[in-house]
Amino acid sequence: MKKIYLDNNATTRPADPVITAMLDCLKETFGNPSSAHLFGEKARNVVDSARDEAARFLGTRPQRIIFTSGGSEANNLAIMSAAAADPQKRHIISSPVEHDSVLKPLAHLAKQGYEVEMLSVDHQGMIDLDELAGMITPDTGLVSLMGANNESGVIWPVKEIGRICRERKVLYHCDAVQMAGKVEFVADFADYLSISAHKLHGPKGVGLLQVAKKAPVLPQIRGASQEHGKRAGTENVPGLAGMAAAFRLAREDGHNERIAAMRQRIEETILKEIPQAMIIGGKSPRLPNTVNVCFRHSSGAGIAQELDARGIAVSTQSACHSGDIDPSHVLAAMSVPEEYLHGSIRISLSRFTTDAQIDTFLGLLKDTSTRAVSVQQHHIFG
Amino acid sequence: MKKIYLDNNATTRPADPVITAMLDCLKETFGNPSSAHLFGEKARNVVDSARDEAARFLGTRPQRIIFTSGGSEANNLAIMSAAAADPQKRHIISSPVEHDSVLKPLAHLAKQGYEVEMLSVDHQGMIDLDELAGMITPDTGLVSLMGANNESGVIWPVKEIGRICRERKVLYHCDAVQMAGKVEFVADFADYLSISAHKLHGPKGVGLLQVAKKAPVLPQIRGASQEHGKRAGTENVPGLAGMAAAFRLAREDGHNERIAAMRQRIEETILKEIPQAMIIGGKSPRLPNTVNVCFRHSSGAGIAQELDARGIAVSTQSACHSGDIDPSHVLAAMSVPEEYLHGSIRISLSRFTTDAQIDTFLGLLKDTSTRAVSVQQHHIFG
Repeated sequence: MKKIYLDNNATTRPADPVITAMLDCLKETFGNPSSAHLFGEKARNVVDSARDEAARFLGTRPQRIIFTSGGSEANNLAIMSAAAADPQKRHIISSPVEHDSVLKPLAHLAKQGYEVEMLSVDHQGMIDLDELAGMITPDTGLVSLMGANNESGVIWPVKEIGRICRERKVLYHCDAVQMAGKVEFVADFADYLSISAHKLHGPKGVGLLQVAKKAPVLPQIRGASQEHGKRAGTENVPGLAGMAAAFRLAREDGHNERIAAMRQRIEETILKEIPQAMIIGGKSPRLPNTVNVCFRHSSGAGIAQELDARGIAVSTQSACHSGDIDPSHVLAAMSVPEEYLHGSIRISLSRFTTDAQIDTFLGLLKDTSTRAVSVQQHHIFG
Repeated sequence: MKKIYLDNNATTRPADPVITAMLDCLKETFGNPSSAHLFGEKARNVVDSARDEAARFLGTRPQRIIFTSGGSEANNLAIMSAAAADPQKRHIISSPVEHDSVLKPLAHLAKQGYEVEMLSVDHQGMIDLDELAGMITPDTGLVSLMGANNESGVIWPVKEIGRICRERKVLYHCDAVQMAGKVEFVADFADYLSISAHKLHGPKGVGLLQVAKKAPVLPQIRGASQEHGKRAGTENVPGLAGMAAAFRLAREDGHNERIAAMRQRIEETILKEIPQAMIIGGKSPRLPNTVNVCFRHSSGAGIAQELDARGIAVSTQSACHSGDIDPSHVLAAMSVPEEYLHGSIRISLSRFTTDAQIDTFLGLLKDTSTRAVSVQQHHIFG
């Protein structure tokens, strides 16, 4: 049976135009963009075009873009830059459901004496803007809050967050890695905005940080003067060409309405046909491609494993280590009830997902989840 | 006319097996190596194989390798890690001919109160091991010295440097970016060793840092647990597959003897047929692929530009800005006489360079350099 990939929030299949653009670069445009000769000039043109395309995609200016090796580097660069911006300001606001590449640099800063305070997240995965506004003090230097959550798909009101931060003169970093390509936005709401190419059918190993005009950047990789002196290293020319092609595709040939309809069908079918299932963040605005469903008294890992054995890739937020069950930090922060917490699977769709694949998936899920419930009950209660 | 690329120290053309390996990954192995399902497992296998291949290439163990986005990131990671290793040790030894991605992080550390001391470099581009040994104090935490110079091609005695550092219990970082693939070595002489894939026919945007067992690593990109928790970010799977293919090619199908013979012919011809030419580092051990030649009272930039107009890419160490001539920091450190300093061009060969290309190049160079001498003399003295 042909494999079915429903884990597009983890990574996506590079689109054909992306591969073509990269292949062309690898074969024909292999110069170093810093070289003065024709080979260098051709490579420089690819980098410049990629920057223009990124700017079009984000509704910003090319000079606001710093290319990085991906979303994690972009998040680190933003956070370390903002933290160093004003040595008087040692208070940072974030949330417990951020990606590790936000939480870990924040934990590092906390060890260095910064006070990192976390907003609460409600049962629907939402934050409270009044809580945010109330948390900001004259000491606050940075608010780091993601655009959309990778596990729940819940979208946060980035414009309103941006407005509050602007009014209170606090730098706002938005990890937009999951949002990009799935919801339309103009990236002027944040001071720092991170993107990763491989989440929207571009290649792995490349991403960017968009930085507002007055937001400071403290280079984390120092060397030659690439990226306006903010990030050294020979440019990943084929990677940038691939990312540019992915941006173009997302702008010109979106599939989000069709994807949202498939998502709707998955959720309706699950709720109707599988007992004791709960959609995570079901009442919040969410990414069109993401379903996170919890089955009561079940092992999400078990269900995902069984689906995998039948050729269907979904993800689970539970990683089991020698009998210990470690629940997702996102679902835990949302106070998902204990009896559902370990029974979560995430299905994330893409432009390549078809209705036929969804049919196959739903058919197998019904079997699998029912059996997994019994197995888990046996394991816990048996 | 078909273009001739003789600037392989700037970057190299990806070899066909490299492109094939990358294409295969982009099309077939697009999973996230951290995913638990089959798509993830296949990607994980590619990463593991790439690590094994890198270890074979370096004569080390896979667990000693941290994949990075390239040589600049690897150099920064090594230097920042070593500097933070022992807060009591604030003295660092390096050289004035290092790459910017070594010099700039060292300059950053100097601003933070570290004492960065530079070895001298003689007319032949060599360092003095006795000077190195004499410079080490109980305060010295790091020696950062490159394996081979990108501009002159001069190779340094890395094993002896390693022995001195080991005896004196000082961490040794070796920027081996230019050495890798051009001279054979087992990478056990240094505590940190940086490699960049695109310098040996691999792709841009990927490299590695080899770290000795007891050498500390302070992560610069924090997040998920990729690279043993030392460097976060979804692995650049196609890039790693490409780098692995490049390592395999360098190990199994070297061209260095043939390349050295071409280099020899270039130098002999130039010295015989072009008056007032000087080979940089001519009496030192050098990379087999690198010729750096200075023409007296000439403009290297002018010669390179004229060659470029005729389809031949070489590099120059002189960048001219509105009449100001800014000589190479490498040649300046070697005390190349003023009348030669601005007349340098670097020719760097690769496995793809042919004897016919060298014939064409030498024919054009004779014309060009002679004319450039007159132009320059007119400009300076006219």
